[in-house]
Amino acid sequence: MIDQKTVRPIETARILLESNNRVELTSFLETVSSTQLVYLMSRLHKDEQQNLLTLLNPEDAAYVIEELPDAQAVDIIEDMDVEDAAAIINEMMSDEQADLIMELHEKDAEAILTEMNPSEAAGLRKLIEYDPETAGGLMLTEYISYKETATVKEVIEDLKKNSEKYKYYHVRYIYVLSRQGVFLGVLQMQDLLLADPSQHLSEIVIKDVIAIHVNASLDEVSDLFDTHDFYGIPVIDDHKKLIGILRRKNVLEAINERAAYEHLETQGIVGGDELRTMPVFLRSRRRLSWLSVNILLNIIAASVIAFYQDTLSTVIALAVFLPIISDMSGCSGNQAVAVSMRELSLGTVRPTEMLRVWFQEISVGLINGLVLGILIGLAAYLWKGSIYLGLVVGGALAINTIVAVSIGGTVPLFLKKINVDPALASGPILTTITDMIGFFLALSFATIMIAHLGGL
Amino acid sequence: MIDQKTVRPIETARILLESNNRVELTSFLETVSSTQLVYLMSRLHKDEQQNLLTLLNPEDAAYVIEELPDAQAVDIIEDMDVEDAAAIINEMMSDEQADLIMELHEKDAEAILTEMNPSEAAGLRKLIEYDPETAGGLMLTEYISYKETATVKEVIEDLKKNSEKYKYYHVRYIYVLSRQGVFLGVLQMQDLLLADPSQHLSEIVIKDVIAIHVNASLDEVSDLFDTHDFYGIPVIDDHKKLIGILRRKNVLEAINERAAYEHLETQGIVGGDELRTMPVFLRSRRRLSWLSVNILLNIIAASVIAFYQDTLSTVIALAVFLPIISDMSGCSGNQAVAVSMRELSLGTVRPTEMLRVWFQEISVGLINGLVLGILIGLAAYLWKGSIYLGLVVGGALAINTIVAVSIGGTVPLFLKKINVDPALASGPILTTITDMIGFFLALSFATIMIAHLGGL
Repeated sequence: MIDQKTVRPIETARILLESNNRVELTSFLETVSSTQLVYLMSRLHKDEQQNLLTLLNPEDAAYVIEELPDAQAVDIIEDMDVEDAAAIINEMMSDEQADLIMELHEKDAEAILTEMNPSEAAGLRKLIEYDPETAGGLMLTEYISYKETATVKEVIEDLKKNSEKYKYYHVRYIYVLSRQGVFLGVLQMQDLLLADPSQHLSEIVIKDVIAIHVNASLDEVSDLFDTHDFYGIPVIDDHKKLIGILRRKNVLEAINERAAYEHLETQGIVGGDELRTMPVFLRSRRRLSWLSVNILLNIIAASVIAFYQDTLSTVIALAVFLPIISDMSGCSGNQAVAVSMRELSLGTVRPTEMLRVWFQEISVGLINGLVLGILIGLAAYLWKGSIYLGLVVGGALAINTIVAVSIGGTVPLFLKKINVDPALASGPILTTITDMIGFFLALSFATIMIAHLGGL
Repeated sequence: MIDQKTVRPIETARILLESNNRVELTSFLETVSSTQLVYLMSRLHKDEQQNLLTLLNPEDAAYVIEELPDAQAVDIIEDMDVEDAAAIINEMMSDEQADLIMELHEKDAEAILTEMNPSEAAGLRKLIEYDPETAGGLMLTEYISYKETATVKEVIEDLKKNSEKYKYYHVRYIYVLSRQGVFLGVLQMQDLLLADPSQHLSEIVIKDVIAIHVNASLDEVSDLFDTHDFYGIPVIDDHKKLIGILRRKNVLEAINERAAYEHLETQGIVGGDELRTMPVFLRSRRRLSWLSVNILLNIIAASVIAFYQDTLSTVIALAVFLPIISDMSGCSGNQAVAVSMRELSLGTVRPTEMLRVWFQEISVGLINGLVLGILIGLAAYLWKGSIYLGLVVGGALAINTIVAVSIGGTVPLFLKKINVDPALASGPILTTITDMIGFFLALSFATIMIAHLGGL
């Protein structure tokens, strides 16, 4: 059975590519949704991707690139001829240009910038100076502005004259500047509608407008959009000159992406998206960078077991429970990590409140430790008929659950406070410590009760 | 040292609350950012939260509630008097009303709806019928529409007359309906600006407009916003009647929230946000619902070890490596899970492509299994001086890494295909299977080579 939806676009694209049919390819791609386009591009071979983008005119190719996930777009652009890539990037909106250029290898980026339209390139060079997680790194430089000395009539005429160009501008506000270019305020289309055509903008401009500094962080701008119902916010520099417009969309998408990358990090995918269309060695190397740290930490943690070989050889049954204690403590601790990460991002907790979080975790840890301890203790008792074995493994898991939620709850706050990425480091720190303590508890309890445990 | 930023708003709020100073409290809250407000509310006691919301007039209280994370807002509203809660919810925008009402206990929701302004309640009852992850569940019902028979002059006059009311409407388009209420198209303010005042809307309406069906899924609407540069999309019912407006903001926020909940699920926090201000027993119960399933799966997996007690008692050293093999296989498998989940959400892979993903994972698994196997094998050899022990644990981890990435890569696709939540189920399925196979491999290899391993 062939999935019509899946197969058709790719085959259609291939046929149009082979026949070099630019017109039909262009109109075909216009009928394809964003999701279909992403899928289509990821299923074409590298040379087909290149053919497609060079067959289209640069404006349409820019549209295709803009729809793709960053990792995929970067992959494709890096394989292109510099001139082709530059022609396409020339046609993109400033925010998308900057996103892309910043993720390219420096050499590729420089080559493309050199090849681009000089005025576009100059603007872009300024944009990529900003940290991508600041207002400057997220803003658009396409906006409509007039000096306060302009009249309503002049503005309306200019809007009509340039309607073709402004069609692609996303923000429908008009920004009003002083004679020196200092940002004064905004006007909406309906303000022009209601005004007398002979009025100067200075007479009708809405001045009480929030603007944001170019270096404001993603969290600050996100907060501003949460607090106010803006569509876009003007971005100003140290001298209050207007240098760009920040849209809610860009902020929400950046927040979204940051959360996605953090999530990947907690599961050991470091350095942004891995797409399975990337080269095997790259994927393998990036995953190993995380795994090799973890295996070292694992060996360190498990070495605790080595100190108790005598106990283990007397109570072989413990070997069954050590992986359970390790895994369950990891589960409990990871729950606490997840809640802390989420509370940090919601703003209901601050990095300095470790003590508060610790208290809140201990209470849950006590209950859950008790329940889990009883469950595992019962399993041990039922299996071997020894209440002592039950006490040893149940007691160890109960106590280690409290340890795990304490560490899991507080470590992300601590890491955030000392500016270490909590998404990346919380998990390994948590599991290493809880493994060591869990193994130590179970094996030392068993050593104490060894007289009652022999031969299990 | 007191963190001024942290402490001041809470103390100020408390002082204003104690003095019952509505005017100053209202203007104080206007100076507070969204983030500060969330933090402030989460640090006030329950009775202080109630006092604050009832002291404010309902419109301002509605603003406060709208700024809070859903879980926090629900918590606070459920504790309120029904009349107070209804008065506040009355003042909220329709999309926020529906979000909140849907998360309340059914009894509380019904009580509040009964108490609300009947026309608001009737609209709201319709809204909460829609699945929250559809266009209907995400749309706003506040929009500006006119019949096609209206003239530009009439519309401009109505806009001026109702400017106070429309100020709170988020979408600046004007929607044009047929005489029967069927959706025809849109107009922007500038279209009115450029039109002759005596023209009828039917003459200038832009008809080639995309509208979306009320039952469209979150993925479909998200795709539509990705494909088109819309700010809002009209939502229509089966009869093409306009019933609401869907904003990009609501869609992006819903996508953000879904991703956040999925992330919490992968780490064992089920059923939405846990805030540490929630009751301890609720938090404990929700976490245990996940942990208790996991401990059962863990016991099942570890029971494999119990079948090899003889081998273990001969080669005690293996007990050190079993937790490492379990944990490292989990790490490798979770990486593959993370990549699959991300590729599913980006649309670069489809749930039917399990075989493709499997091949792509095997190649990475081969390399990483080899590297990890050599590392752990080397550690075993260096510790005990036995090349056979190195071969046993190295071989087991190498093979199990391939198993883990195979399962981790394909299980999310399979679960998605059979409509089981992959964020929730992938992890436990993965670790249970990889633990069983990992333990089996290590212990059966050791059993085969037992002659060379005695006494380690």
